[in-house]
Amino acid sequence: MPRKQLVTLITDFGSNDYYVGVMKGVILGINPEAVIVDVCHHVTSYDVFDAAFTLVQSYRYFPSDTIHLVIVDPGVGTARRPLLARTIDQKFIAPDNGVLSLVYEREENIEVRHITSEHYFLSPISQTFQGRDIFAPCAGWLSKGVEVDKFGEPITDYAKFTPPKAKRVDEQLVKGVALRVDKFGNIVTNISPEDVPQLFTENPLPFRILINQQEVTKLSSTFAAGKPSEVFAIVGSSGYIELCTNRGSAAKTLNATRGMEVGVVIGPAGAPSA
Amino acid sequence: MPRKQLVTLITDFGSNDYYVGVMKGVILGINPEAVIVDVCHHVTSYDVFDAAFTLVQSYRYFPSDTIHLVIVDPGVGTARRPLLARTIDQKFIAPDNGVLSLVYEREENIEVRHITSEHYFLSPISQTFQGRDIFAPCAGWLSKGVEVDKFGEPITDYAKFTPPKAKRVDEQLVKGVALRVDKFGNIVTNISPEDVPQLFTENPLPFRILINQQEVTKLSSTFAAGKPSEVFAIVGSSGYIELCTNRGSAAKTLNATRGMEVGVVIGPAGAPSA
Amino acid sequence: MPRKQLVTLITDFGSNDYYVGVMKGVILGINPEAVIVDVCHHVTSYDVFDAAFTLVQSYRYFPSDTIHLVIVDPGVGTARRPLLARTIDQKFIAPDNGVLSLVYEREENIEVRHITSEHYFLSPISQTFQGRDIFAPCAGWLSKGVEVDKFGEPITDYAKFTPPKAKRVDEQLVKGVALRVDKFGNIVTNISPEDVPQLFTENPLPFRILINQQEVTKLSSTFAAGKPSEVFAIVGSSGYIELCTNRGSAAKTLNATRGMEVGVVIGPAGAPSA
Repeated sequence: MPRKQLVTLITDFGSNDYYVGVMKGVILGINPEAVIVDVCHHVTSYDVFDAAFTLVQSYRYFPSDTIHLVIVDPGVGTARRPLLARTIDQKFIAPDNGVLSLVYEREENIEVRHITSEHYFLSPISQTFQGRDIFAPCAGWLSKGVEVDKFGEPITDYAKFTPPKAKRVDEQLVKGVALRVDKFGNIVTNISPEDVPQLFTENPLPFRILINQQEVTKLSSTFAAGKPSEVFAIVGSSGYIELCTNRGSAAKTLNATRGMEVGVVIGPAGAPSA
Repeated sequence: MPRKQLVTLITDFGSNDYYVGVMKGVILGINPEAVIVDVCHHVTSYDVFDAAFTLVQSYRYFPSDTIHLVIVDPGVGTARRPLLARTIDQKFIAPDNGVLSLVYEREENIEVRHITSEHYFLSPISQTFQGRDIFAPCAGWLSKGVEVDKFGEPITDYAKFTPPKAKRVDEQLVKGVALRVDKFGNIVTNISPEDVPQLFTENPLPFRILINQQEVTKLSSTFAAGKPSEVFAIVGSSGYIELCTNRGSAAKTLNATRGMEVGVVIGPAGAPSA
Repeated sequence: MPRKQLVTLITDFGSNDYYVGVMKGVILGINPEAVIVDVCHHVTSYDVFDAAFTLVQSYRYFPSDTIHLVIVDPGVGTARRPLLARTIDQKFIAPDNGVLSLVYEREENIEVRHITSEHYFLSPISQTFQGRDIFAPCAGWLSKGVEVDKFGEPITDYAKFTPPKAKRVDEQLVKGVALRVDKFGNIVTNISPEDVPQLFTENPLPFRILINQQEVTKLSSTFAAGKPSEVFAIVGSSGYIELCTNRGSAAKTLNATRGMEVGVVIGPAGAPSA
């Protein structure tokens, strides 16, 4: 019996080609009741971390029983395994290249299986588009109600990366990194309020956020609070500190890009810097 | 009881981030029967007019009872109010920043409410992504059948801008503006055939359309009627006069951008210009 | 009675405007049970071949009874006819400009009708956006169960182009063309393994693929097998030979664009070249 079930898509396939459309056709051909939701197809090409971040920021907003299909797969056609992971209320289909790392980190109970049941795949299998030939059909069958244990055996040696963590260097300095730049030019760091609690007390200490040899010294609670072209910090919707400007691009203003070091120096301006 | 209901999305969130996907997750988590339709996520960043224009050109083509969610919200996190508006057969959820102005202008009977029922919001509420935390959940509950009066009280002091109107300067000159440039490079003006009826009689007068110190003197009924790289005017699908070239970009040819003044000089070439 | 039915969309409308959203509104207004799937809206503007290629690579992955709406229509508003085509299990709505050519070529039994039943159209009909006013409403009614013969009479003189074929020049040389460049920078040629069987035997002959005065001499089975910035050939998911680099853009590396000639010289390096 077909089941109505959500299938989300995160890929680096972009929008210029038929790749995403074909995957949808394959899923709907297997389960016409599947409801497919595009989360993002513009993950940076081949960038497993960017996909992992996109996934961890989005999956928990979807209802129970959603299937998340994540195809950023520079190793397509090699021996890297296709995976089916399950938490208490969500399911994930992805290549075994670490793209689920932030889910593994967040979820206490997760079961990961190596998908080996080739009768669920399309045939023949392309060595360059397994999103179409392996991952989409498995998502289709899973959405149709096939039990997870039909797809393959549990494994524990799946690939996992450790995300870059903000690091307390000393009393005055916390070091982090720019995780990504969003569409508006907001720079999302990996520094959370918990990493720099001194900025969030009733009488917060002054601070300087250092990036690309410039400093940001203001913390705001809304984008609109900034003056034109002033860069300020904000606790973003991701839970991390972001650098922003009001109606402009902080990334352009600071000439900053993803991967750049970000330092938070806590205390008055004379304090030692990073 | 869940209800199948259309929810359209217009945002400036672009396609590189997870923002749109998360909003869909929130809506579908509340009402799995909602049918979400992307209208446009590439409204010019922070541009309330561009969003208003996109909305007014699209909403009337949707069936009765559609909910239109419009999130272009440079004031996110400030005191600007979240709104729920209702016409005789459509509903709108948007920030109170004027983005519904062209709907207010078009519709005779419209009821606008200030959404204050915080129990429909996610918790905690981010100050930077209220599309996720306020607007999407309200759209979800509304689509599920919650009555509009449950969301808050009617108001009449909502923000409203007056769209730029074409202006008759004298018998020979009508002045307007380039409202936007579309994907093909067509320049959409705010001048309608009613503003320059002399061009649309059985024996139309000659005319010159002036933009960026260049002039366009031909009116065509189809894109294909133009010679290569010739710019001509057409009555576009928006109801306004557009400047176009056949299989090319009029905006590039004229080096014209949104916001530029557009003049229509009616009468033979010797007539006084703008 | 409304019917749940898939309607796919292929257009060159891009994502900056409301055009695609409006078409969805029109379809859903006629048949709220239609399930609309975006295949691609970033076909190269006005490019009938690019649309035809996108269609032929995608339609066969969709289930029986899917309706494919293809709107790349530089002749909008002229006398070019709107078409409804039907194969044994799929339906197509498109302008009569050759955009269905690759479907005509692939399918043995195809019936093509000239859509003339104007009562299915919106009124008035714009001369510039017939995707909204003619094609989308016909897709809506067709998806709702209106029989194909209600739309118009069969024709046989529909427009059809012959796609560029790879050509065997002599024993050593096959000439083809770069059909397109995908999002990753992979160059898709029109040369299939059947055109150069000597490369795919158990003891394949050496070869050189010539493009833009450079040569590619390696055939790989996966993207990951290549060294950084090395360009190699692969049999792509389209069934054609593609030129690729591992985690990079072959098109950039070779400075190659769509339409460029591609030669395959079979045999040892001393052999005569293209």
